Amino acid sequence: MKKLNSEQDFLAIIDKYFPAVNGHVTLGRGDDCSILQTNGQLCMSKDLFLEDVHFRRSYFSPADIGYKALAVNISDIAAMGGVPEGFALGLIIPPELDENYWDALLKEMATLANTHGLILVGGDLCKGSSLGISVTVWGSPYQDRKLSSKSKGKFLTRGNAEPGDILFIHGSLGLARTGMQLLERNDVTAAGKSPASTQAHLRPNVKIKIGNALSTYSAVKGLMDLSDGLARDLPRFIDCCETSFGAEISLTGELLHEEVINFAKSEGIVPEEQAFLGGEDYALLGAASADKFQEIADNIAGLIPIGVLTEKAEILLNGKKYSQKGFDHFSD
Amino acid sequence: MKKLNSEQDFLAIIDKYFPAVNGHVTLGRGDDCSILQTNGQLCMSKDLFLEDVHFRRSYFSPADIGYKALAVNISDIAAMGGVPEGFALGLIIPPELDENYWDALLKEMATLANTHGLILVGGDLCKGSSLGISVTVWGSPYQDRKLSSKSKGKFLTRGNAEPGDILFIHGSLGLARTGMQLLERNDVTAAGKSPASTQAHLRPNVKIKIGNALSTYSAVKGLMDLSDGLARDLPRFIDCCETSFGAEISLTGELLHEEVINFAKSEGIVPEEQAFLGGEDYALLGAASADKFQEIADNIAGLIPIGVLTEKAEILLNGKKYSQKGFDHFSD
Repeated sequence: MKKLNSEQDFLAIIDKYFPAVNGHVTLGRGDDCSILQTNGQLCMSKDLFLEDVHFRRSYFSPADIGYKALAVNISDIAAMGGVPEGFALGLIIPPELDENYWDALLKEMATLANTHGLILVGGDLCKGSSLGISVTVWGSPYQDRKLSSKSKGKFLTRGNAEPGDILFIHGSLGLARTGMQLLERNDVTAAGKSPASTQAHLRPNVKIKIGNALSTYSAVKGLMDLSDGLARDLPRFIDCCETSFGAEISLTGELLHEEVINFAKSEGIVPEEQAFLGGEDYALLGAASADKFQEIADNIAGLIPIGVLTEKAEILLNGKKYSQKGFDHFSD
Repeated sequence: MKKLNSEQDFLAIIDKYFPAVNGHVTLGRGDDCSILQTNGQLCMSKDLFLEDVHFRRSYFSPADIGYKALAVNISDIAAMGGVPEGFALGLIIPPELDENYWDALLKEMATLANTHGLILVGGDLCKGSSLGISVTVWGSPYQDRKLSSKSKGKFLTRGNAEPGDILFIHGSLGLARTGMQLLERNDVTAAGKSPASTQAHLRPNVKIKIGNALSTYSAVKGLMDLSDGLARDLPRFIDCCETSFGAEISLTGELLHEEVINFAKSEGIVPEEQAFLGGEDYALLGAASADKFQEIADNIAGLIPIGVLTEKAEILLNGKKYSQKGFDHFSD
């Protein structure tokens, strides 16, 4: 188990897995700054991924950590309908992690980066008491070569949806929350017994292609990724403009994964509420004009309508009122 | 002393001090990503600023921390000759810091950002055991309205300098190192007795105007900021291209601040070596054609020639050979 003693040891691993430049970047790592080649608009996001806040080393493998630290950032680009181009990386490095650990972590991060064509431009390494990963990612608007320039993709921002619009998701709700709750119990058999939910927490899917396809429809009025659960993120989605709207959400058991249903039942929780509370699903939540939704759903597989935006500024889940304090089980 | 209990409390302080959008940014904070308006090239850098790695709360005030976390990042833009445009911010928040602390920290960060026209686009907040600040900053090439487009600024990258070129600095060497060493002794009177050196460590100058002016000269062949000291950074500056060069550096007592000289003497250190070892000076180090240097220095106040690039791949300080093991006191 070789210890990594210097910045040079780290940079050698990084250089092994991450290419130095591509078309988006004219100057890569090693100078005061990197130089990006840009044209028009970029979207940018930045997320911290910290040990014992966002992950635990007890049940995340180094490869899982490398994957998820980048995936949750790429997911923000997907939620804009954008094409990820590159990222900068800050690592907080605890002394006890050896070369094999970092090799596995960075190799998996590079696999994900290369799959999506992201270049690593540089960043920063420092020592610390616990593992931390800081990622800044950027992307460009989507352009489908088959489309005319008139119908190329646009960034999908919040604050454009209106009452009457259909709310839809792409992805599963409550699955990652279920996986996290199982893993937090230190149940070593959790992964084997509940592979979909534990995998959803450890390795969330990144939905770039879905976001790109949605970005080409003018009837799509907004998109976000569900990182804190539908219960917390839905108000952000419909509330981010000056006017505040509400929503009527309908989640049926048919929409839920059987692992969510089984876990909820064994805990005495209503499965639909487990899905609604969610958290780290990284499903996409969007809004579209009611008269165009079916056409969009016919062309993009996996879109699931879950409700409608309403004038009244309250959120109903299957007819029950939900507030920041939780569900009002007496309102129905 | 009000505790900050929620993300909303933090965002309220941030919104108080940082404007939401400007001409560089069409979508600011609050969505999955921010949207930058770009045209041509951007330079980007990312630095972590961590408690007990880069600063101590015992002698950095919250305002000092807010200032320096951003200043060291802006310095990377200065070292490219660029104009800073904006930044994203990640905060690792220990539980014991109250609203007054964060108000002071963010207010001073905003003052520096607003002075240089930087917009804060967003980022990430999470809890942690010690204070940490992650900044990603970007900038554009400099364009002086008085200059023709032919002579507008370019990004100043390393790897273009050649033997015979003059090496120069702008700033002071060894001052921040001296200040850090005094502050680390927990000498509460250090700031009063050695105001310039302690201030150099707590509040490094950001040299955007100098970098911008240098970027308009084709005879300037590279620039960097001295974050790790001339001894460690000089090899990076002259070694970053495939060919490896050397340098003959001449630092005389006249170039050194009296606080550096006095401290070194009291410690039995050669003052010029204290200056050469430096660290966190954030002075600019550059190279220029020998035949053009005087013309540049006549137009940009404060440029100090400190030596010349040589064919021979060795570094001499005042005639003494320097290697990674330190100075060879027997070589002269």
